[in-house]
Amino acid sequence: MDGSRFLVRYSLAAPGEEEARAVAFGICVEQTVEFPFDLVRHERIREHIVGRVESLAPAGRGRFAADISYAEETAGMELSQLLNVIFGNTSLKPGIRVESFEPTAALAARFQGPRFGVDGLRGLTRTAAAPRPLICSAVKPMGLSVTELASLASDFAAGGVDLVKDDHGLADQAFSPFRERVAACADAIREANATAGTCCLYAPNVTADGEEEVLRRAVFARDRGAGALVISPGLAGWSSLRRLAASEEARLPVLMHPALLGGFTAAPRSGLAHGVLYGTLARLLGADASIFPSHGGRFPFSRRDCRAIAKGCSEAKCPWRPILPAPGGGITLERMPELIRFYGTDVLFLMGGGLFRHPRGLVAGCRAFRRSVGG
Amino acid sequence: MDGSRFLVRYSLAAPGEEEARAVAFGICVEQTVEFPFDLVRHERIREHIVGRVESLAPAGRGRFAADISYAEETAGMELSQLLNVIFGNTSLKPGIRVESFEPTAALAARFQGPRFGVDGLRGLTRTAAAPRPLICSAVKPMGLSVTELASLASDFAAGGVDLVKDDHGLADQAFSPFRERVAACADAIREANATAGTCCLYAPNVTADGEEEVLRRAVFARDRGAGALVISPGLAGWSSLRRLAASEEARLPVLMHPALLGGFTAAPRSGLAHGVLYGTLARLLGADASIFPSHGGRFPFSRRDCRAIAKGCSEAKCPWRPILPAPGGGITLERMPELIRFYGTDVLFLMGGGLFRHPRGLVAGCRAFRRSVGG
Repeated sequence: MDGSRFLVRYSLAAPGEEEARAVAFGICVEQTVEFPFDLVRHERIREHIVGRVESLAPAGRGRFAADISYAEETAGMELSQLLNVIFGNTSLKPGIRVESFEPTAALAARFQGPRFGVDGLRGLTRTAAAPRPLICSAVKPMGLSVTELASLASDFAAGGVDLVKDDHGLADQAFSPFRERVAACADAIREANATAGTCCLYAPNVTADGEEEVLRRAVFARDRGAGALVISPGLAGWSSLRRLAASEEARLPVLMHPALLGGFTAAPRSGLAHGVLYGTLARLLGADASIFPSHGGRFPFSRRDCRAIAKGCSEAKCPWRPILPAPGGGITLERMPELIRFYGTDVLFLMGGGLFRHPRGLVAGCRAFRRSVGG
Repeated sequence: MDGSRFLVRYSLAAPGEEEARAVAFGICVEQTVEFPFDLVRHERIREHIVGRVESLAPAGRGRFAADISYAEETAGMELSQLLNVIFGNTSLKPGIRVESFEPTAALAARFQGPRFGVDGLRGLTRTAAAPRPLICSAVKPMGLSVTELASLASDFAAGGVDLVKDDHGLADQAFSPFRERVAACADAIREANATAGTCCLYAPNVTADGEEEVLRRAVFARDRGAGALVISPGLAGWSSLRRLAASEEARLPVLMHPALLGGFTAAPRSGLAHGVLYGTLARLLGADASIFPSHGGRFPFSRRDCRAIAKGCSEAKCPWRPILPAPGGGITLERMPELIRFYGTDVLFLMGGGLFRHPRGLVAGCRAFRRSVGG
């Protein structure tokens, strides 16, 4: 027992400090022994295994911030159990939110984080020398044939987008089966790149039922010329994303998509803070870019939420490589100047429908998108 | 395209019917093409792939119920994509809740549901002839040695509980490694059963990082004499539970644990309805019992929430076998008469700390628990 402890900051609701201390101690017990503390007889368990309130401070009206440390061994070096100690049962209680997480050195090493991160993506998109926001669009809508999707992919690449991803709703349906779609879109983008001298990356969606199938699709995609991958961990499981990012066979940048993760941020004062879910956790899992719905579109994330995500993707105190925040969900050409001011340079913008509305067509829309980021 | 469609009922917030219709149509688009509807040119996609509002009705102050059908092919017969169509992106929007889900015949057959269900668990616990509530306790707290946990398991079995599960926080930590723990607890329960002529089932926790490791642990557990399994899909992934339940090698009843699922029910009018998450979805995934925190304990679930869960576990309109609701989270011997009136006979009660407070010790506590259900 080397005494290493990882730290979780929770915010919690309580009318005063005494009540806040009781809530914080309740978290310490719930997340570890889950057993009446007065019945825990071993001093080693009481002192070491039960979480420990390291500090407690007021954090605004009726809220407190509690820093709680947990013995590294409670997590057993497994992702699932680490998430369980951080927030398993307490996710079911109201008014408690995870505001930050700091791993031990051994946990930081165990979960290696992103393989590429910001620097890796800059290298692959040849934007390291003159960094600018990266841009991405998606082949869709679902229901189009493989040929139609590949034609869109070709137009996106010709128009100068850096990444073309599958819409996250394209899985392995009869109208565009995974393998046929990936082969056709990868070929289309390779040809467009060869013609235009560009280096657009194609990112197929490998979200599937369980890590085996996810990895099978990823390896197929890589072999057929994909340049990145998209996965929704809310659908495929946290460890599918982690395995994908760590895979020696796939070795491609991974874009994390937020499908089905809405519950974690649905109640304003419980769940996981935006910066934790789309920043720290995305980095822990190994995502190289973290997709989320930006403020001002058709989703309810606020400017503050989005700023927290961007910070979570890049802040240096997190031990894993910085990654690109990837805002989408209603971005238009008109909004690009405002959004660039807001997000800065290290960002991957996702635009879908907005590109199709350009009066001179899709390729012209992509070129305008590219010009908007100074490409 | 055979035209089969599955049905999802959403409740949504809107000031009037016109606005409600707009929100419902927004769901139809978001969950399928995720693309401006006016830009969708193929009539086949507009008519068939985009979700269809089948009915819309007022559902209380400022709320409406929208029945939306989706073409079966949008889900591609994959669990991850089915969940994506039901609630992927819409989980990120406020005020929309999934109230029910009705699969097509092909989806019902594809996701076979529970292997055991209520009848299977009654057979294994020899309670088919004279049905009564089943009772369960958990070896804990984390930090105890394998020998100490096995001793507790022995006492639970001797006291007449039907199932002994691992606490969901016992994974594969150094203080009680999975394989050693499972072997010791299974042996202890086998011996106690042999002595007392009982048929207590041991349910190890096989929550782990990804389906491969989950299945590896499950097969080990079965080979060493486990009689059931516990898994937290919020930690291990939806498809890990599904694969576990469907596995020909494991072939044991599966108890679903709610760790990290709190976000789905954290906001009262968004997320998944309690009966959907802990009932319909648990059955779809193949759980044989669905653990949740009962009303009146240390968690915020209401009587109404718990009633909805019990209904979701058993209602006949769901195509999969009925399963046992498994309330826990602060159940005491004193509350048993009230809880039996509330839940009836087809239920699995979980009691932890409460059993240890019996003045004559743990075995006496278990016997009182057993007497309380008329065993």
